[in-house]
Amino acid sequence: MHSTRLVALTIATLLFFSASLTGTASAADQPTPGEQALKYRKSLYQVIVWNFGPMSAMAQGKIPFDQAEFATRASRVAALTPLLPEAYPPESRGVAGSDLKDKMWDNRADFNSKLQDLINESAKLASVAQAGDEADSKAAFFDTANACKNCHDEYRSDD
Amino acid sequence: MHSTRLVALTIATLLFFSASLTGTASAADQPTPGEQALKYRKSLYQVIVWNFGPMSAMAQGKIPFDQAEFATRASRVAALTPLLPEAYPPESRGVAGSDLKDKMWDNRADFNSKLQDLINESAKLASVAQAGDEADSKAAFFDTANACKNCHDEYRSDD
Repeated sequence: MHSTRLVALTIATLLFFSASLTGTASAADQPTPGEQALKYRKSLYQVIVWNFGPMSAMAQGKIPFDQAEFATRASRVAALTPLLPEAYPPESRGVAGSDLKDKMWDNRADFNSKLQDLINESAKLASVAQAGDEADSKAAFFDTANACKNCHDEYRSDD
Repeated sequence: MHSTRLVALTIATLLFFSASLTGTASAADQPTPGEQALKYRKSLYQVIVWNFGPMSAMAQGKIPFDQAEFATRASRVAALTPLLPEAYPPESRGVAGSDLKDKMWDNRADFNSKLQDLINESAKLASVAQAGDEADSKAAFFDTANACKNCHDEYRSDD
């Protein structure tokens, strides 16, 4: 049964899922591993920030607090932040288009510690948001936002 | 205590997390809501595919099967696929730079059903991968990849 399923997958589909993502691409116009990692990193932040946005608006009272939506988005962010450490491999150092300050590479332990703070705060946020108290949820949001800011202040060049 | 934390968040940080993501941006050079949604959609797929890649290579025997890594990446994909439905809001119809066939908008129920298949298969993949059997994990991977392909065949223009 499974071999039938395998045959149903075309070569094109298999290539789509493996060629550019496992370091096997060799064509000159393929992105380098560092460029691929930067694209992954930016995509990851984009997905995080998209979900952070409505929580931010609720925490600031710009839109009504919706406990279910807040908890859903907090849960997503908590699932996403643990993916960040992999998005900063050494081969991405110096790749054009990044806002990362180069000094991070000489302060990796501190940077990793700040990433871990974000992971911890976002896990706490998801837990508090699930419990459902509005004031506690907003406070946990600002703790998480501060964890973002602490790292941006030190290692991001444009804010 | 929380007010202290709030003060510590600069106006700039608050704007960073809310301006472009809650529809309040008004400057002419800001992306439209449709463009923002397309960027979110592409970012989401990028994060999914990055994690799909090593599973694909393992499933095809191109790299050794690593149960822990396979299970971690399967868990990530299962957390990410439920975010996809939100990434196709009506305002993103016709936005430049998308591979989505326009006919999707007239077949939304079928499209949603195919997305749900992917969500279901990726949840099963995460569960099977966590249990740890290599053959079962690879079979569940191909089931998930087929769920991707079923939707691409119908609604994606370039593969």
